[in-house]
Amino acid sequence: MALSNQALERAGLSARHAQVTSEVLVQGDMMGIPTHGVIRLTPYTERLKYGGVDAKAEPVIDQRAPSLSIIDGQNALGPIVADTALSQGMAMASETGMAYVGCRSSNHFGAMVPYALQACSSGFVMLSGTGASTTIPPWGGAEARIGNNPMCFAAACPDAPHFILDMAMSVAARGKIRAAQAAGEAIPSGWAVDKTGKPTTDPTEALEGFLVAVGGHKGSGLSMAIDVLSGVMSGAKFMTGVTSWVGNATTAQELGHFFILIDPARLIGKEPYDAAMREFCDIVHSTPPADPDVPVILPGEREQACMADAQANGIELNSTVLEDVRRLAGD
Amino acid sequence: MALSNQALERAGLSARHAQVTSEVLVQGDMMGIPTHGVIRLTPYTERLKYGGVDAKAEPVIDQRAPSLSIIDGQNALGPIVADTALSQGMAMASETGMAYVGCRSSNHFGAMVPYALQACSSGFVMLSGTGASTTIPPWGGAEARIGNNPMCFAAACPDAPHFILDMAMSVAARGKIRAAQAAGEAIPSGWAVDKTGKPTTDPTEALEGFLVAVGGHKGSGLSMAIDVLSGVMSGAKFMTGVTSWVGNATTAQELGHFFILIDPARLIGKEPYDAAMREFCDIVHSTPPADPDVPVILPGEREQACMADAQANGIELNSTVLEDVRRLAGD
Repeated sequence: MALSNQALERAGLSARHAQVTSEVLVQGDMMGIPTHGVIRLTPYTERLKYGGVDAKAEPVIDQRAPSLSIIDGQNALGPIVADTALSQGMAMASETGMAYVGCRSSNHFGAMVPYALQACSSGFVMLSGTGASTTIPPWGGAEARIGNNPMCFAAACPDAPHFILDMAMSVAARGKIRAAQAAGEAIPSGWAVDKTGKPTTDPTEALEGFLVAVGGHKGSGLSMAIDVLSGVMSGAKFMTGVTSWVGNATTAQELGHFFILIDPARLIGKEPYDAAMREFCDIVHSTPPADPDVPVILPGEREQACMADAQANGIELNSTVLEDVRRLAGD
Repeated sequence: MALSNQALERAGLSARHAQVTSEVLVQGDMMGIPTHGVIRLTPYTERLKYGGVDAKAEPVIDQRAPSLSIIDGQNALGPIVADTALSQGMAMASETGMAYVGCRSSNHFGAMVPYALQACSSGFVMLSGTGASTTIPPWGGAEARIGNNPMCFAAACPDAPHFILDMAMSVAARGKIRAAQAAGEAIPSGWAVDKTGKPTTDPTEALEGFLVAVGGHKGSGLSMAIDVLSGVMSGAKFMTGVTSWVGNATTAQELGHFFILIDPARLIGKEPYDAAMREFCDIVHSTPPADPDVPVILPGEREQACMADAQANGIELNSTVLEDVRRLAGD
């Protein structure tokens, strides 16, 4: 965390903004999501250096209605914009029961589980999502015009772990294909098609081609729904309007996100809600497993177990990543 | 419509409740979703007759916060409860910018596109969903404990058709398997597993077994998310607590639904929103199609085209269904 803060402060961030960003990235690593961990410090600091992201930007809150706000990120790093949005959303939801916060002029904001965990720790139900650069053709199309637009649904549970579903709209994430490429391995069939639209297991062909949406027209439609909520409604760019994060260190991404917060205690009361979530978790956990050695778990349980383990025992970072972080921190 | 009203009034409904219900069912047929059309009058009237649904029930609105309400359906037919919820949601969203309405003590409410169309016609963005009886094992499980829990995301477009994504969480709907069984046809592989969890193409084996969730753990998680929003948060039953619609004409289903309404004009203004949605639709429509003869369309476009065609030229009902409706109407 100290090294990550140092790297970001060296890139021009204030101590507070460096801390907010580091928390999201370090938690990514702690939760077993290294693709969204401190490995991202390299592109983050690169974009800060070349002007693609503004190190000095302060997000601006525009409350439009009792339950609606827009955050103009002013081209700050995504975690700084998202952190502002989440705080504003929870504050509004505490007043009216629920809130929508749309973010524009933002950038990649890391994994969504850290935000979900923060919302759940305060007792909220959260639905959030983000736009992304285009990697998937809309259903029936032969050109990438939608992003893998991850979404997250989280519900506070009285006894952690909380219910946290974090899913991208592609069958597999682009990061996993890049990892396979780096490792010189083939990817499973069904993950991607090449640039002519034909299925491929070659990661390089896949990266030149397109990801495939989960469930065909369903994943394609869900990705578009997330783009409406993140991009259209916040005034951000959407679909082909989003600048790719890769190879454009000088251009603002103009990315959009959204956070919807609901206070379930205001609905049926805290105790009945807690009792219902307990019953809900019990029904899932007591399901006879298909494989007797693999118990049925709730979405997000694995990430929260990883996090608890990391808090107790620390984490092991890939040595190349650690070296990069040290270099960026000037250590 | 007149026959449907007559059938429902004969089963004890008031003229107003019969009209609300008939509109949803007839629109289902007009939109090319006959599985959710007037074919449902048979189970609806059967449940009304045997006490599984209360013909005289009036839903009760409990506004819990400026942006939150719960509707207690009092065991009325689902469309009556959902219609009350949608009106309440739009009224609250007109005040605070957005609203969540949870429904409990409700029943099957037909297709979701009619509700979406109503919300879009008033300029809203809508996210809704409903619980369902259990047909799918949670990811990694060998017993059906989650429903196919359909969800709908709809966004008003300045030039109709509106963006309306209506999706269930299973690869295929149970109704389609029942239709294959009735037609004596095999189902495609990947739609379902038999009762021991093995893949099957036999519709009877599939109906005795389980549906498969779209995208594995992703669809399983989404189904649970819809159950939290529909069931846990409204105080309705959820997962294994929901009474099956089939073969239980005397027992209340205690089903839950939810409607989230957002007024996008309060966010970025009506004109910028309309312009962005126009651009959004253009990006989708101008995508080069994989098959040159099949243009890329938006979710819900087919249903709205069917509806326009039905308004101009009428619809052709399956003769058995028509006969059943006539019989129920005492015609």
